[in-house]
Amino acid sequence: MSEVPGSLLRNVIGSLAGFGRDLTQSRRAAQAHKPISRLTRLCRALLSEHGEASGQALAREVIAGYATLDASERSEFFLLLAQQFSPDPAQILAAARAYAADPTQAKLVQLQKLTESPRQELFRRLNMIVGGTAALVQMRKALLAENTPRGELVGVDADMMRLFSSWFSRGFLVLRRVDWHTPAVVLEKLIQYEAVHAIQGWSDLRRRLERDRRCFAFFHPALPDEPLIFVEVALTEVIPRRVQELIDPNAPLGNLQRASCATFYSITNCQEGLRGVSLGNFLIKQVVAELRTESPGLKTFVTLSPVPGFRRWLGDAREQLRGCKGGEGVLDSLLRLEDPGWTRKAEACRELQSALMPLCAWYLTQAKAHDLPLDLVARFHINNGARLEAVNWLADLSDNGLQQSAGIMVNYRYRPEHIERNQDTFAREHSVLAARRVRALARFAPLAAAETGAK
Amino acid sequence: MSEVPGSLLRNVIGSLAGFGRDLTQSRRAAQAHKPISRLTRLCRALLSEHGEASGQALAREVIAGYATLDASERSEFFLLLAQQFSPDPAQILAAARAYAADPTQAKLVQLQKLTESPRQELFRRLNMIVGGTAALVQMRKALLAENTPRGELVGVDADMMRLFSSWFSRGFLVLRRVDWHTPAVVLEKLIQYEAVHAIQGWSDLRRRLERDRRCFAFFHPALPDEPLIFVEVALTEVIPRRVQELIDPNAPLGNLQRASCATFYSITNCQEGLRGVSLGNFLIKQVVAELRTESPGLKTFVTLSPVPGFRRWLGDAREQLRGCKGGEGVLDSLLRLEDPGWTRKAEACRELQSALMPLCAWYLTQAKAHDLPLDLVARFHINNGARLEAVNWLADLSDNGLQQSAGIMVNYRYRPEHIERNQDTFAREHSVLAARRVRALARFAPLAAAETGAK
Amino acid sequence: MSEVPGSLLRNVIGSLAGFGRDLTQSRRAAQAHKPISRLTRLCRALLSEHGEASGQALAREVIAGYATLDASERSEFFLLLAQQFSPDPAQILAAARAYAADPTQAKLVQLQKLTESPRQELFRRLNMIVGGTAALVQMRKALLAENTPRGELVGVDADMMRLFSSWFSRGFLVLRRVDWHTPAVVLEKLIQYEAVHAIQGWSDLRRRLERDRRCFAFFHPALPDEPLIFVEVALTEVIPRRVQELIDPNAPLGNLQRASCATFYSITNCQEGLRGVSLGNFLIKQVVAELRTESPGLKTFVTLSPVPGFRRWLGDAREQLRGCKGGEGVLDSLLRLEDPGWTRKAEACRELQSALMPLCAWYLTQAKAHDLPLDLVARFHINNGARLEAVNWLADLSDNGLQQSAGIMVNYRYRPEHIERNQDTFAREHSVLAARRVRALARFAPLAAAETGAK
Amino acid sequence: MSEVPGSLLRNVIGSLAGFGRDLTQSRRAAQAHKPISRLTRLCRALLSEHGEASGQALAREVIAGYATLDASERSEFFLLLAQQFSPDPAQILAAARAYAADPTQAKLVQLQKLTESPRQELFRRLNMIVGGTAALVQMRKALLAENTPRGELVGVDADMMRLFSSWFSRGFLVLRRVDWHTPAVVLEKLIQYEAVHAIQGWSDLRRRLERDRRCFAFFHPALPDEPLIFVEVALTEVIPRRVQELIDPNAPLGNLQRASCATFYSITNCQEGLRGVSLGNFLIKQVVAELRTESPGLKTFVTLSPVPGFRRWLGDAREQLRGCKGGEGVLDSLLRLEDPGWTRKAEACRELQSALMPLCAWYLTQAKAHDLPLDLVARFHINNGARLEAVNWLADLSDNGLQQSAGIMVNYRYRPEHIERNQDTFAREHSVLAARRVRALARFAPLAAAETGAK
Repeated sequence: MSEVPGSLLRNVIGSLAGFGRDLTQSRRAAQAHKPISRLTRLCRALLSEHGEASGQALAREVIAGYATLDASERSEFFLLLAQQFSPDPAQILAAARAYAADPTQAKLVQLQKLTESPRQELFRRLNMIVGGTAALVQMRKALLAENTPRGELVGVDADMMRLFSSWFSRGFLVLRRVDWHTPAVVLEKLIQYEAVHAIQGWSDLRRRLERDRRCFAFFHPALPDEPLIFVEVALTEVIPRRVQELIDPNAPLGNLQRASCATFYSITNCQEGLRGVSLGNFLIKQVVAELRTESPGLKTFVTLSPVPGFRRWLGDAREQLRGCKGGEGVLDSLLRLEDPGWTRKAEACRELQSALMPLCAWYLTQAKAHDLPLDLVARFHINNGARLEAVNWLADLSDNGLQQSAGIMVNYRYRPEHIERNQDTFAREHSVLAARRVRALARFAPLAAAETGAK
Repeated sequence: MSEVPGSLLRNVIGSLAGFGRDLTQSRRAAQAHKPISRLTRLCRALLSEHGEASGQALAREVIAGYATLDASERSEFFLLLAQQFSPDPAQILAAARAYAADPTQAKLVQLQKLTESPRQELFRRLNMIVGGTAALVQMRKALLAENTPRGELVGVDADMMRLFSSWFSRGFLVLRRVDWHTPAVVLEKLIQYEAVHAIQGWSDLRRRLERDRRCFAFFHPALPDEPLIFVEVALTEVIPRRVQELIDPNAPLGNLQRASCATFYSITNCQEGLRGVSLGNFLIKQVVAELRTESPGLKTFVTLSPVPGFRRWLGDAREQLRGCKGGEGVLDSLLRLEDPGWTRKAEACRELQSALMPLCAWYLTQAKAHDLPLDLVARFHINNGARLEAVNWLADLSDNGLQQSAGIMVNYRYRPEHIERNQDTFAREHSVLAARRVRALARFAPLAAAETGAK
Repeated sequence: MSEVPGSLLRNVIGSLAGFGRDLTQSRRAAQAHKPISRLTRLCRALLSEHGEASGQALAREVIAGYATLDASERSEFFLLLAQQFSPDPAQILAAARAYAADPTQAKLVQLQKLTESPRQELFRRLNMIVGGTAALVQMRKALLAENTPRGELVGVDADMMRLFSSWFSRGFLVLRRVDWHTPAVVLEKLIQYEAVHAIQGWSDLRRRLERDRRCFAFFHPALPDEPLIFVEVALTEVIPRRVQELIDPNAPLGNLQRASCATFYSITNCQEGLRGVSLGNFLIKQVVAELRTESPGLKTFVTLSPVPGFRRWLGDAREQLRGCKGGEGVLDSLLRLEDPGWTRKAEACRELQSALMPLCAWYLTQAKAHDLPLDLVARFHINNGARLEAVNWLADLSDNGLQQSAGIMVNYRYRPEHIERNQDTFAREHSVLAARRVRALARFAPLAAAETGAK
Repeated sequence: MSEVPGSLLRNVIGSLAGFGRDLTQSRRAAQAHKPISRLTRLCRALLSEHGEASGQALAREVIAGYATLDASERSEFFLLLAQQFSPDPAQILAAARAYAADPTQAKLVQLQKLTESPRQELFRRLNMIVGGTAALVQMRKALLAENTPRGELVGVDADMMRLFSSWFSRGFLVLRRVDWHTPAVVLEKLIQYEAVHAIQGWSDLRRRLERDRRCFAFFHPALPDEPLIFVEVALTEVIPRRVQELIDPNAPLGNLQRASCATFYSITNCQEGLRGVSLGNFLIKQVVAELRTESPGLKTFVTLSPVPGFRRWLGDAREQLRGCKGGEGVLDSLLRLEDPGWTRKAEACRELQSALMPLCAWYLTQAKAHDLPLDLVARFHINNGARLEAVNWLADLSDNGLQQSAGIMVNYRYRPEHIERNQDTFAREHSVLAARRVRALARFAPLAAAETGAK
């Protein structure tokens, strides 16, 4: 059974991608002075169109036309989508009254039809062509980057999100191992997208795909060359505490036979246009399941994660610290952080370690917003069923790591058989699950003393 | 790059499929006396669930639970979906008022959120698991088969259709050639689904996949073993007029080098649960494109189609005919049809041919409902950009063919370069495009005379 | 990376296959009266040809020309290959003398070059084209079916075998699971080739590929649609003793969770043209390895095998039996076998069971030729590292089973951890490894008594 | 139908590759002091072994054992293969006499069996395991690199070549397009192997795989990640004359719609271990066929090739030139080549152009050895059916290009419909087919004058 549109697809996407560039000049000339009004006309035609054949041709034209817009035209187009492709308030109101008066299914169907934005159907019809999904994901990326007061475009975004939530439903995603047998067209995207610990080029990438590493990504059938999200994993004998050891391109190959620990040291969302579509929590759990099947010797599944909100919180907590017993001393020590070379000075390190480690443990377990951990990474993993396992000193010496996390990294641990229970407990009690030693560490924070004292 | 869930998927689907059967007994016992209330509880949990991990587990349970329902429980469940998982009229009304008073995007987003049925989100979450799509398509098939007064379930159906229109969007469908290299699991479905000209078994199927035949189907990535719609094509030297020649399992192999005509002699929608999702018009056009690329020698693309509404219309037109000049004679001739062996009697054949052929041409080109051809097959192809090319006598001698179409079949012709123009014209003028000789034939119908006379 | 000749290959093979048929008529006419002399000329040209491009064209012509030969011409062609494409005795003798006088590598190379038959290079060059391998395997099949006194063609066969041993080397074979997802083009060959327990059609085949069955085959990359050898396996809770239970198309589905036993109940060599190329022993061992990985619950790996030489041997052993104590009684009992309905008669069954079971155990463990088991199936499995585990009464009630094996079947057991040791022991000691109860059974055979008495 | 050994294969090859390294230390210790004698023992066991199961285990051990050898041990091993695994001269002589006396097929078979080297069967058995082919290709690479007087190992090499000619027969090779969708594991080999115009890294490679370039390679099913030979092609509007324009990583993208010329600008044999197995001629022809199918707009197929033997021949021809009319002047001009910066000096360029271009044309068309073009690249293409189309001045300014070809490159042209005829003609007449202007150019060479004068 041969899949027909194999290479076709590449060609179409290719030509779509190139279309805007190639035709900009000539089209512009031909199109009077308002490409935007021509585009709007095409959109209306696509919506009104009955014959679906012309539908495909129109969809192609709309996407090509959109690709020729410059930044200000794009803004104008988005505003038009908000203003002219929203549903009619009066009609809705009448239908809502009818439904309220007589809440039958028939009335409901009628009401829902009127409430749906015309632009939602427009987006759906753009997806009639191969390459439509990719174009729409790009369009939302541009939408999210707009400077327009957000309120004016929020309905356009909501309509896109509604579609994307359906299209990128977990049941449609395909988990694939990424390794040195993966096509270059995918691999180069890893280099391009990796945000947590930048990949320095092909030889760096190659090390991250060696026998003692794993990389998995979710793909969508309509975007075969585009990883949606990917995770990098190191297989080691002990839980790693420092990320530089893992991402060193010259790190020696580990002994796979003895590896018992799988560490998720980087998770990257690739598609800005899919922001808000949840992918990460599925990914970790499915990769854990994959790894257990593939390598029964793996017993421990942890992350090696940054604490990206730590230093910002430290700044905000200054006042509060000042009021605590021992707080002043700690604040003094923190001044050491101003010396850019502190990590290479033994005494500074010692002093900062005493001051920061308890504070970090306290921050991760106690600092909350709306019952959820203040730190976004902590929030993600704790909410996802993990336990805070360890806080590691001098664990990320990159500029970014020092700037945001004061060089600290932590391990979150996923025990497959506890994940659900942990999630339930957290949903009920909102207390951050942490290993005994982490809780002990947190008790040394001046804030903890304050709290206890207060009781 | 290895696709991880390869065989996993089959297993999951397999186990889902088997789940109901295996567990029915024990579950039933364990589940007090109301499986339906347990299922409803699971649905609510799935909707309320925040942690998406339990979400997948819950989705699995809901689908398994649904599979254990017997017919009456299923009816009850659908009614519950209508009654308890619809949106709240009062809330909607308030939001609709707010939007009418102040038609901002923010108000609109709020309104749309409230208008969406909770069951729509329920269906979306059921799709979190592999196999979810298949289960939902099955569920809609059952829904469509319900005896419940349709009005009560119309909202449930509308919510499903809304999702399916997104999921089975043309951009996600994959066209594949089906031939003797196709997996048996797909081929057996062709045998099972073919509705127009039944396939009598594997050797009959094999003939239809020989070198001088083509078969193409649309597939969806989430239903890899399930053709959604398929078309059977014969490559011949001249336009075929009789379908029995094409589907004869012992038909001699045609000479591919000399074939210039591709005839679509059967189009089958496979998934009752996708009724209403348009697939057919895309299919024909894309297959025409495929065939032109593959075999540049092919110049003519036609169908060999039944006229399924002809005899029913004949019955209805009796009165009208009686009033026309020559109508009585024709009605007399039509009595010949009552003789079940008429096709083997030369004189009956001649007489019926004179009577029926003009009437059929007239029926196809003139009989309308709401500006569209009365005959559903004609409506499909004319609307789709084809031209009525020929009306063929004694072209389908099967019971069904005689019963519905009086043995007549017609060719609709697709000229790739005319399709769009034809569609546009038809959308504007609503006149059925037909070859000159077909129009000439129609003029011999008594009704035509009547009409002309009337002028 | 797209594999270019995908469908090309099918076309080439297809056209090659059809070539003979299509052109026979016209070619014959055009080719004077001796197609055979034209073919020989083409062969010579192919051998002499330097430019390899024309080589491919010539190879195509030779294969097409061969396909047009009728049976007597084919015989003539094979004889020509023997007579005119053998190496020159005088040249060889000179080179052999030179090598004997001065045994250098250079002299050896020269000698080997002269000793190789020109037809060997001819066969190699025929393989320059896609489809060449298939054509040569067909050619050998025809060669083996020749009536010509075997001695005259033995050199032609040896040259083919030498190539095939290289080409079908274990390292090039690909083991694939065959199931309902396998292309029909392969599945139909299982139906066609299965020789041990005939497959009655597609629904019979389907049962053999259900969830509680397995089928594996070796394929060669150059013959992608042709299984070379395949094995059918049943997964059951206990060791099966009767084959009819396994191959019953209506057998209930087994419970996979409880299956601990994998039974190889049929092994079929598909390609007559590869007779003598060893494939079977690799197959069983690799399938055992596959099954253990896939289903760790499987603990027991056995065959359910016929005893095809048993009744022939019984006939030959008549005299010998007559001379043993108890032999006369046994011979009397054996007369019961003449009654075609004996299997349905309780007393006959009982009497035959007493007589035949010990004899069969004796036959399998003691009857030898050149130190190897006389029974060919026993020879294969014992030589291959298995142990004779059980002898089963009334185990194959098919005509063939009764005719050859008196309805008896046996289980050979493969313990992965013992296979090598068993092979070594057998190679050294030539004693058939059998379970204690089988050895005990054999001791009841009259021949056993005779032997013991003789000691 | 799932291909079982998918990832298995990689693991096996991986572990084989690693085996030597990992075990070297411990094995060495354990293996007394002569790994070589242990290896020889294993080889003998593998040859004598009847049970093929142990065969696979032994093959694995031999290959692993070989991998542990250091350079001097490897030499010793190859010598052992020559001395101890050659056939017996006396036995052969007897069989050759028997065959000469009575030239029957049976005698021939016996003789051939005795003439085959035992090491040939040894190599064949090493191929019983997945990864065997790769190991043997590596082994031959090492063999070819040996310093041992070639005569002593020539028989070992001949035996390997005999196998490889069978295994890498055209019918088994798979042509694949290589592009940015190709796995990185293959792409990195292009970077590594490209010998003609070195690839400077991944971004250079990427340019060579862009839309206006093509790359095709032959693969063997047993070496799925190893290109055997690959060709790089540029699609352009006119025949390119200078290679630097083609391989410039920043070259602008060509317009594919207007491309009518496909230029083969680099052909690279990848496997030193396959030296002498002809692959190149097939490759060009099949790629031409592919390109014509893919892009019917392509009309012209040429190479852009170096003239690697030109300057060496110039040196050798010095004497001869001196004797010709005008030869002295030319020789004077050639001194300009000594100035390393001549390509940037207008006058030097002009003078050298007048001197060198006619000489190069003469060299390519007239300089022969054994009736074949002296220049190896010319020999390849002319023999392969191409025509010498143009001689291009200042066409390759790389160090290598200046050193060997004085910066000149030439176009050989492949006209699909002339290839066979050209080959035939050349085989008969041995005159180099060249375009009229090339022949005209050659006539200006002093040597041409000399020749004409001589007549």
